[in-house]
Amino acid sequence: MLYVVGIGPGGEGYFTKKAEEILKNIDLIVCYKGYKKFVERFNKPIYTTGMKKEIDRVDYALKESKDKDVALVSSGDATIYGLASLAYELNEKKNYNIKIEVIPGITSASSCSAILGSPLNHDFVVLSLSDLLTPLDIILKRVKCALDGDFVITIYNPMSKSRKEPFLKAMEIVKEHAEKNNINYVVGIVKNASRENEEYKITTINELIDNLEKYVEFIDMNTTLIIGNSNTKVIDGKMVTPRGYLNKYKVE
Amino acid sequence: MLYVVGIGPGGEGYFTKKAEEILKNIDLIVCYKGYKKFVERFNKPIYTTGMKKEIDRVDYALKESKDKDVALVSSGDATIYGLASLAYELNEKKNYNIKIEVIPGITSASSCSAILGSPLNHDFVVLSLSDLLTPLDIILKRVKCALDGDFVITIYNPMSKSRKEPFLKAMEIVKEHAEKNNINYVVGIVKNASRENEEYKITTINELIDNLEKYVEFIDMNTTLIIGNSNTKVIDGKMVTPRGYLNKYKVE
Ligand SMILES: C[S@@+](CC[C@H](N)C(=O)[O-])C[C@H]1O[C@@H](n2cnc3c(N)ncnc32)[C@H](O)[C@@H]1O
Ligand SMILES: C[S@@+](CC[C@H](N)C(=O)[O-])C[C@H]1O[C@@H](n2cnc3c(N)ncnc32)[C@H](O)[C@@H]1O
Repeated sequence: MLYVVGIGPGGEGYFTKKAEEILKNIDLIVCYKGYKKFVERFNKPIYTTGMKKEIDRVDYALKESKDKDVALVSSGDATIYGLASLAYELNEKKNYNIKIEVIPGITSASSCSAILGSPLNHDFVVLSLSDLLTPLDIILKRVKCALDGDFVITIYNPMSKSRKEPFLKAMEIVKEHAEKNNINYVVGIVKNASRENEEYKITTINELIDNLEKYVEFIDMNTTLIIGNSNTKVIDGKMVTPRGYLNKYKVE
Repeated sequence: MLYVVGIGPGGEGYFTKKAEEILKNIDLIVCYKGYKKFVERFNKPIYTTGMKKEIDRVDYALKESKDKDVALVSSGDATIYGLASLAYELNEKKNYNIKIEVIPGITSASSCSAILGSPLNHDFVVLSLSDLLTPLDIILKRVKCALDGDFVITIYNPMSKSRKEPFLKAMEIVKEHAEKNNINYVVGIVKNASRENEEYKITTINELIDNLEKYVEFIDMNTTLIIGNSNTKVIDGKMVTPRGYLNKYKVE
């Protein structure tokens, strides 16, 4: 059987009990090579492949699941830009008939929200800026729709060394919307959440645009951005999106 | 000090190690009365209040934090329709100067996604239909923007016994959009995820609208809905939103 397991940001503290239990009991772990360090402590055989080898990795995991219990490990949550869908799709396409179970994990939106304060405390969007599998025009349209709806916007896969265009175009759209509506959105940026070298910055869209080079230098593949909605503010250095209680009820 | 702790859907299996550790070491737990059963096993004093007593609850937790370590417990993730923002806001407004730390938890979107299959495997929106603190016109506008962007839509707080209008209006908008674009969206509905009496249904927007009464009967305050995007499909009885690998790469 195949368990598709989300392990959260990586550190032991954010594994769920369920994920721990499964990883202690399976026969084989399959994961991206960069995540090996997070699962070595289970002392199981580990099969890894690199970036862009996702289909090989999932296919290997499914084949091995015929006579073993296998854990296909994703960081964060395995259904959020992880490999859970591909497992279901390949299982059908190749008629493997493997039983699949997904174990949810703490996704980057949650781990980064906690570090920044509480930016996700109202309706929000989760959006990937990777145009490897999604055309750029669809990504940019989604940025516009999210701004039109005044959603908080959580951005995964903001950029890599060779892929900066979607980020630059998306920030241009946010800036235009901000100017038109006279809102200086609060922006939170978290790098390596709950890992060694965790860093975060809380800024605004205007400040980000004015210092674009500095931010492009800072942001990498292990970074998540959260752009506030029109009510998001900074309290004691934390990024907070009000739920609305203090507007509705008087507090002396 | 105040820890604002997300405990996931409730069952022990989805607590993170970090949440466990903190709840074992604090002096007092403060939570909604319905969640008491999930934290009794820590053998700590527990202060509870009911629905609509959120401000009292958070104020009490902050006051007690002056000379104790307190955990303000939310189900799921404490920053997602939880009380984390209110804690930061009240702390500032009343000049309490309490140190606050948020501990992320598995939010309902993740726990329900895992149960349904992998519906969140592309860009998505998280939206609450509660019009207690958010005007209905803003909620409905967000439904439209989410559909325009072809986001997967996760709906929290879909309805209560006395609050059905936002749900009925939102489904009307989804149906219109579906008809106009000739898409019969897959809809996943999960009730009591990872709790006793867990139930889920996978249907389509057309089937839901045709049997609206039956679904209105089924859906309650412990239910989350996930409406697929235009590519979401059903594989082996599971709801799956493709990430796009099999469109891009050939698989024999
Ligand atoms: C392929 S996606 C995987 C997401 C993962 N399944 C999840 O639920 O968090 C990779 C993206 O997740 C985000 N991410 C993953 N780990 C992170 C971390 N420790 N800190 C900040 N962002 C992270 C970054 O935006 C990164 O580009
Ligand atoms: C006030 S919100 C709290 C959300 C919570 N902080 C989280 O992150 O999941 C309550 C809503 O969360 C969803 N929810 C909470 N627990 C659930 C469960 N066990 N199964 C399904 N949905 C749940 C329902 O939509 C419910 O109306």
